[in-house]
Amino acid sequence: MSLFRLIPDKSDVLQDYNKPPEQARWKRRLFEVIFQSHTPSAKLFDIILFMLILASIIILMLETIPALGSKYYLPFKMVDFFFMIIFTIEYILRIICVKSPRKYIFSFYGMVDLLAILPSYLEFIFPQSHLLMLVRSFRLLRIFRIFNMVKFLDESRMLLFAIIRSFRKIVIFLFFVVLLAIFLGSVMYVIEYEHNPGFTSIPQSIYWSIVTITTVGYGDVAPMTALGKIFASFIMILGYAIIAVPTGILSSDLSRRYARKKISIRCDECLYEDNPDGARYCSKCGNDLHGAPIVSKDL
Amino acid sequence: MSLFRLIPDKSDVLQDYNKPPEQARWKRRLFEVIFQSHTPSAKLFDIILFMLILASIIILMLETIPALGSKYYLPFKMVDFFFMIIFTIEYILRIICVKSPRKYIFSFYGMVDLLAILPSYLEFIFPQSHLLMLVRSFRLLRIFRIFNMVKFLDESRMLLFAIIRSFRKIVIFLFFVVLLAIFLGSVMYVIEYEHNPGFTSIPQSIYWSIVTITTVGYGDVAPMTALGKIFASFIMILGYAIIAVPTGILSSDLSRRYARKKISIRCDECLYEDNPDGARYCSKCGNDLHGAPIVSKDL
Amino acid sequence: MSLFRLIPDKSDVLQDYNKPPEQARWKRRLFEVIFQSHTPSAKLFDIILFMLILASIIILMLETIPALGSKYYLPFKMVDFFFMIIFTIEYILRIICVKSPRKYIFSFYGMVDLLAILPSYLEFIFPQSHLLMLVRSFRLLRIFRIFNMVKFLDESRMLLFAIIRSFRKIVIFLFFVVLLAIFLGSVMYVIEYEHNPGFTSIPQSIYWSIVTITTVGYGDVAPMTALGKIFASFIMILGYAIIAVPTGILSSDLSRRYARKKISIRCDECLYEDNPDGARYCSKCGNDLHGAPIVSKDL
Amino acid sequence: MSLFRLIPDKSDVLQDYNKPPEQARWKRRLFEVIFQSHTPSAKLFDIILFMLILASIIILMLETIPALGSKYYLPFKMVDFFFMIIFTIEYILRIICVKSPRKYIFSFYGMVDLLAILPSYLEFIFPQSHLLMLVRSFRLLRIFRIFNMVKFLDESRMLLFAIIRSFRKIVIFLFFVVLLAIFLGSVMYVIEYEHNPGFTSIPQSIYWSIVTITTVGYGDVAPMTALGKIFASFIMILGYAIIAVPTGILSSDLSRRYARKKISIRCDECLYEDNPDGARYCSKCGNDLHGAPIVSKDL
Repeated sequence: MSLFRLIPDKSDVLQDYNKPPEQARWKRRLFEVIFQSHTPSAKLFDIILFMLILASIIILMLETIPALGSKYYLPFKMVDFFFMIIFTIEYILRIICVKSPRKYIFSFYGMVDLLAILPSYLEFIFPQSHLLMLVRSFRLLRIFRIFNMVKFLDESRMLLFAIIRSFRKIVIFLFFVVLLAIFLGSVMYVIEYEHNPGFTSIPQSIYWSIVTITTVGYGDVAPMTALGKIFASFIMILGYAIIAVPTGILSSDLSRRYARKKISIRCDECLYEDNPDGARYCSKCGNDLHGAPIVSKDL
Repeated sequence: MSLFRLIPDKSDVLQDYNKPPEQARWKRRLFEVIFQSHTPSAKLFDIILFMLILASIIILMLETIPALGSKYYLPFKMVDFFFMIIFTIEYILRIICVKSPRKYIFSFYGMVDLLAILPSYLEFIFPQSHLLMLVRSFRLLRIFRIFNMVKFLDESRMLLFAIIRSFRKIVIFLFFVVLLAIFLGSVMYVIEYEHNPGFTSIPQSIYWSIVTITTVGYGDVAPMTALGKIFASFIMILGYAIIAVPTGILSSDLSRRYARKKISIRCDECLYEDNPDGARYCSKCGNDLHGAPIVSKDL
Repeated sequence: MSLFRLIPDKSDVLQDYNKPPEQARWKRRLFEVIFQSHTPSAKLFDIILFMLILASIIILMLETIPALGSKYYLPFKMVDFFFMIIFTIEYILRIICVKSPRKYIFSFYGMVDLLAILPSYLEFIFPQSHLLMLVRSFRLLRIFRIFNMVKFLDESRMLLFAIIRSFRKIVIFLFFVVLLAIFLGSVMYVIEYEHNPGFTSIPQSIYWSIVTITTVGYGDVAPMTALGKIFASFIMILGYAIIAVPTGILSSDLSRRYARKKISIRCDECLYEDNPDGARYCSKCGNDLHGAPIVSKDL
Repeated sequence: MSLFRLIPDKSDVLQDYNKPPEQARWKRRLFEVIFQSHTPSAKLFDIILFMLILASIIILMLETIPALGSKYYLPFKMVDFFFMIIFTIEYILRIICVKSPRKYIFSFYGMVDLLAILPSYLEFIFPQSHLLMLVRSFRLLRIFRIFNMVKFLDESRMLLFAIIRSFRKIVIFLFFVVLLAIFLGSVMYVIEYEHNPGFTSIPQSIYWSIVTITTVGYGDVAPMTALGKIFASFIMILGYAIIAVPTGILSSDLSRRYARKKISIRCDECLYEDNPDGARYCSKCGNDLHGAPIVSKDL
């Protein structure tokens, strides 16, 4: 059951290749281990993969530290090579065991898996490449695999629900914040640009106003004129007040969800709809609920 | 239906010129396209206008970047001229198609439209003007047109509702925050002014206390004495606690609104009150609900 | 009706001198104008006093700006003298018209009024005083009068209610935050003190950890070692999470208050308890509800 | 009743040594004074201990201030010695009066008490130790004793309840934030590393992205390229929006708790379950409810 199952067009794609192939038993077994997570060996696979991804990301980070990167050049290269082989094998196994390899390859996770190993080969072929760092950073895409792996935690599903429900409202709110930042930044530019080397252009002023409204406040650009400081104070107090808006939206959405909705899982087999949220097997017919749709009803 | 319809005195003004003129058919058609948004051509007009405003704002921003502004002086001037012509035509069309041109001209959006094109003419007549930048920034007022155009998104109405409902409370809260900032800033001035070049006057200290209470924290002014740091820590913790107040107000307001209120639209024609929030046509008589008043009832 | 009426021991004191004196009619009239706010002349008095306090505070601020303070020394002195006379007259009038002058003088507002004018006399007697600025800042105490004057806004009462209800919880929360800041600051001191000139002592490190937990982030002190940065990241994420606590407390308190409580005012005269929140006169016997106790009942 | 009673495995351990020993009367009396807090002498002991711990922590802090530490070297040493003796006596008394000294010694608080005095002895034996500061900071562990002492405040229990209930959700949320910070930090590294001395490595960039997402914003590292500033603005606005998530979780949890749950204490003696939250003695059999389990029921 994918974390992204809740987004319809994505889940449809996944649904297709997520069914185990019917040809061979070992393929079905392999599919269970790699793509699912309800057998002990599948859980072990998930945990090992999680560890390997984490290790490869940490290695990638350490490589960029100048002092370490030059000192341990060879060991790093060897570890890189090791991970390249491991993840290539994983990719090949994934292709082998799905019913429709093509659908997997062009799915979101198929692309992530490919892009995370392909650049490593480029790096070995053209070691002096100028785009080396860009290419290397593609390996970080594997973080999405970790996102996907947190699927076994029920809390994350609840959270995701609330965020998706509030998504449109929060996006509209952020759109207003950006418009506000553009407007306030431009006004600030008119106030400050003759006296302050930090406000050299309107985009720079907008950057400053976003830094201020979001209460980040780096201080690399700060108002210098008296009028600028008064206006900046006004922007800060405004930012302080409007931070309440996304919080209020999400709080009331989460409250309402618990108060009024009942979340259950519908069995694909017998169409029984009252399986409790988080159930693994249908309580009526015993069918595996993996990938079954979530149903939310008003009480 | 204006975004500001919810503010009574503004909506009354809008109501007046928002009715299509009865003289000519082409004027009525033009009015529909320009002022309304429920026919395909009206939607197309809205989208094109949105794009043009966005483009004109982006051009205005890029012009202020010194490196670009001097290099592409002529192309920028030409694009400015193009937008000036386009928005002048739009303004004239708006005047032509409304029933009462004078009411439109002196309405909020009429003023915005005028102020956004008038300065461009001044710029062409007096290109060496000292107030050039101020004059130019008037073009940014067109952002309000974008605000107005988001009217077709139901979520923004809901959001606006909650903000307007909580407006008085939040303003009072912000008033207390400002009073607090004045008081704490003055105390901080007494503590720091002899030892810290950043606390040169009470207004400067108040600026610092607003920066601190709102958790922005630029760092351009920071306490230096031991007592000042202790007092600053106290202010920060206070700011950390009182940020809960506007959030709490809005959260509880949003929660209550959903729990107890029912929002509907009253038809101007048959006075039927139960049209669902967001409806475009009256479910009883089929009248266009554009501009019809919103009714909120306790359950 | 004082803003502080909700705090029992304070309201008792206020109750005593808040009753109009019975001796003379002009005293009663004066009392109504100065201490109450439901007659037109009392409202006018409130507004004029509000303006004068605001003006005196603004003048006090401007005086501290070095450029202005030296240039307009004499005008500032004259304005100071004017305010001194005005507020002295106000203080004397307040003493005259209350029933028990002594109780007023030793009440919170009596002290505020006295401390706000007394230092001005000291300033005129000892103009070269070293403590000049400290003495002068006492005038800012008058801000509390403004706090008191916002009593006619119903929203502020509601807000105050929620804050007072949540006060203990928020104080305990802040106490935990301070303990946490002490602990984390000390750990950070051990990590950074040998490598970073900003972490010279544990109090300095605690100051830094408060700046970080509250997400203010001046940047005057920042971690420099790798371990310090990792630990600082942990503190920031912690601060990001625990900011939810005071907000959650207040949100749920405000929500509950509306859901379950009914706020009304009990008439002192006929003991009728169902006067709606914000009522000025008892709906049963018509008695003035000024100063009457607020009653909150569970539904 | 320990603050940590709510965490099962810890409370079990505590339960064991928390029972007064049956051998001698003076031991039982001592146990009541030291470990419990419902008799006057026990409360006095708690307050004195609280003061001593606070004083010892303040002294420890002041010692690290270079100016004070060298000037008052001897007085500080003497005060340190005094606290060492006092807390050693306290530790010995605790061992004496519990039923199972071994269980106490290896319990969480036993370890805290030991680690808070042991290093002081090391300091006296090896005064020139290089790890002096690390060793000294162990004394700060005593802060946990203060955390434990706030048990008599009912509000802290309610707060703790809400935090524990939301703990898993908040941890998962923070895990996502960290993953996001890693991803965004890495992208920012690719954008900035050639132009900005602040983005020397991916870990450094991740540190920056955490500083930004959490809206702390030190400003020691800030974007310099145009693309970097655009991307940073995006990160800030994202951070501004996702701060709503933990707040929303906690708000809705606190609201629900009050709306639907009833918290009571079950008597260990008669198993009566409806003792109100905060009760000290069972309302049925009069048994001391100290250490009795909290029961939460759905209404």
